[in-house]
Amino acid sequence: MKLPIDQLNQWPTPYYLYDTELLGHTLSAVTEAAAFPGFHVHYAVKANTNRAILKIIAESGLGADTVSGGEIRAALQAGFPADKIMFAGVGKTDEEIRLALGSGVGCINVESREELMVIEQIASDMGVVAPVAIRVNPEIDAHTHHYITTGLAENKFGVAMSMLDTVVDHIVASQWLTLRGLHFHIGSQIETMRPFEILCERILKLQKELNARGVSMPLINVGGGLGVDYDDPMGHPIPDFKAYFDTFHRHLPLQPGQQLHFELGRAIVAQCGALVSRVLYVKQGVEKKFVILDAGMTELIRPALYQAHHSIVNITSQSPDRELYTIVGPICESADCFAEDTALPLTRRGDLVALLSAGAYGEVMSSNYNARPTVSTHLI
Amino acid sequence: MKLPIDQLNQWPTPYYLYDTELLGHTLSAVTEAAAFPGFHVHYAVKANTNRAILKIIAESGLGADTVSGGEIRAALQAGFPADKIMFAGVGKTDEEIRLALGSGVGCINVESREELMVIEQIASDMGVVAPVAIRVNPEIDAHTHHYITTGLAENKFGVAMSMLDTVVDHIVASQWLTLRGLHFHIGSQIETMRPFEILCERILKLQKELNARGVSMPLINVGGGLGVDYDDPMGHPIPDFKAYFDTFHRHLPLQPGQQLHFELGRAIVAQCGALVSRVLYVKQGVEKKFVILDAGMTELIRPALYQAHHSIVNITSQSPDRELYTIVGPICESADCFAEDTALPLTRRGDLVALLSAGAYGEVMSSNYNARPTVSTHLI
Repeated sequence: MKLPIDQLNQWPTPYYLYDTELLGHTLSAVTEAAAFPGFHVHYAVKANTNRAILKIIAESGLGADTVSGGEIRAALQAGFPADKIMFAGVGKTDEEIRLALGSGVGCINVESREELMVIEQIASDMGVVAPVAIRVNPEIDAHTHHYITTGLAENKFGVAMSMLDTVVDHIVASQWLTLRGLHFHIGSQIETMRPFEILCERILKLQKELNARGVSMPLINVGGGLGVDYDDPMGHPIPDFKAYFDTFHRHLPLQPGQQLHFELGRAIVAQCGALVSRVLYVKQGVEKKFVILDAGMTELIRPALYQAHHSIVNITSQSPDRELYTIVGPICESADCFAEDTALPLTRRGDLVALLSAGAYGEVMSSNYNARPTVSTHLI
Repeated sequence: MKLPIDQLNQWPTPYYLYDTELLGHTLSAVTEAAAFPGFHVHYAVKANTNRAILKIIAESGLGADTVSGGEIRAALQAGFPADKIMFAGVGKTDEEIRLALGSGVGCINVESREELMVIEQIASDMGVVAPVAIRVNPEIDAHTHHYITTGLAENKFGVAMSMLDTVVDHIVASQWLTLRGLHFHIGSQIETMRPFEILCERILKLQKELNARGVSMPLINVGGGLGVDYDDPMGHPIPDFKAYFDTFHRHLPLQPGQQLHFELGRAIVAQCGALVSRVLYVKQGVEKKFVILDAGMTELIRPALYQAHHSIVNITSQSPDRELYTIVGPICESADCFAEDTALPLTRRGDLVALLSAGAYGEVMSSNYNARPTVSTHLI
């Protein structure tokens, strides 16, 4: 992404910077790579709900994947058509279900039999038919980190394969429910295509079984999970969408009229955003040198929460000399550390620094801990 | 803490509930146990900055320990006298230092030589003398969890013992700085007195060396760190303040006129707060039963961030039958799990549940991730 120093120096730090040009290129790449019949791409709103970002994505023609009433409202306000909004999540409140049904969202992804009963009751109370897909645990281990792995048996998400028939039968028999299809999500930050190929095989097998029981699936939602290059964001600003969509095109032949839905969040917005921060102090310790930034875990919690790595660049320093620094934030927590012993050009107080690949799960997870103000944002 | 079901049922969930009566008892216990000559207790504002809570604590006569400009302002607004406000933190901005000096805070705890130079420059620009204490790393391992341990050599906090003399000499020689004393902080959630005893020995040794060089310390700040009982909060609502203050009284004889400062956060507010939530679904998995709450890591991030344990009670259910539940929030993250396989009375959709010991590092660390509204609070 672009990091024009003169422009970036104008704004008080810390702030999130979004490169709308790169976002545009990314969206074009998605649209082009997904141009197969029946393919529908949705943006996973939870990755970044910044109003301007949502608007740009809505204008590109993508749908929206939402996980709360707040996200449904944000998606509608940004201009996503209601029928292109999907509503997922393990803990839907009655109010959120009413909002989803009242707004006419395209599909509610049901995570349990218990939730299905509540949706049915509310749909019946409202006199509407609820379009639902069942989130199924395909029991595929696309394990990348124990915290961001979903899709395995017996976590809180989805319906176990062994319970699927009961849930399907209930939907088919209900006058207040209509089965749109199945929903899968095998994990996040997946960097090879193999887990997606296995998912396709699993889906085809399931589909065959359901078809044999007379159940058809107008829609298959394969979730998201495509990883981005956190190590070299400048070298790989746009993920390999072609490989991703080609994999599904090759391995998951669609039935006539069938839709294949994708939910991409991180892959669309991560590389378009950076957290820009100023160096408050370069502190010489006994053995280590600390770069103390004015941004911390309050602005970007991924390193503290997931031990996630964000590439860091010094935008100001042109020094050919590189030194090892431990880069930390100002928050009174040991967890508030962005990187240990990382090489940067000679760094001084006042330098401007960018934490890259921060467009996804950055601003949305920020907090006001230590009574810090809400982080501001700028678009270029 | 009190959990009066009829009252709690009135308010929409989730919300933080604060028991002001228990807070009052806790503050009385602190004041009574700390009634030794020279003892001054400060409340670590970062544990909970709720305005009503701050006001109650300010009225009790305690001082305030702050770590940001926002916290200084919150403390002043709550009625803490400026000279009883301490200002600490590794990443103080120029603006925050100006605010601290302009407000007349009692002491700035300096975390590095580099920061000291900046404070000196700003004090000189403003024509005021900055009262400073040096935060020293006493190199004591009061290790409780790698994320919440501070005070060891070579983390971002404080000045190494080997660098102390240089920093002291600089302060003594400066017309814009006045040395108030030394500041220590050996960790959080410390459950035995032994680490504090070692701290006292270390302080006395250091003090002897400094006194021998003609440097006196009007103030010693021993930080905080006293743990609370997360396992049995109802059985131990008030920490053993007597043992804590007695330890320092016994092991750290004060010099004439010398002040001993304490910074207690968690120990004062943790047990006075609960996160109250409603059960959205009891989801029967294949092997596990999930209780899905309408509160999640957005409201209370400690379990996800530190693998912290909070005791959970079902306020509604009177059932004598107990079952094992995995208790999770509604957020679309595997990390959003409060407890695995925990025994609760038979739990049903609609039950009211409380996550206890949530008065510290709960509300202050909340976020709006998943486009969730800011959590509300109620006092009883």
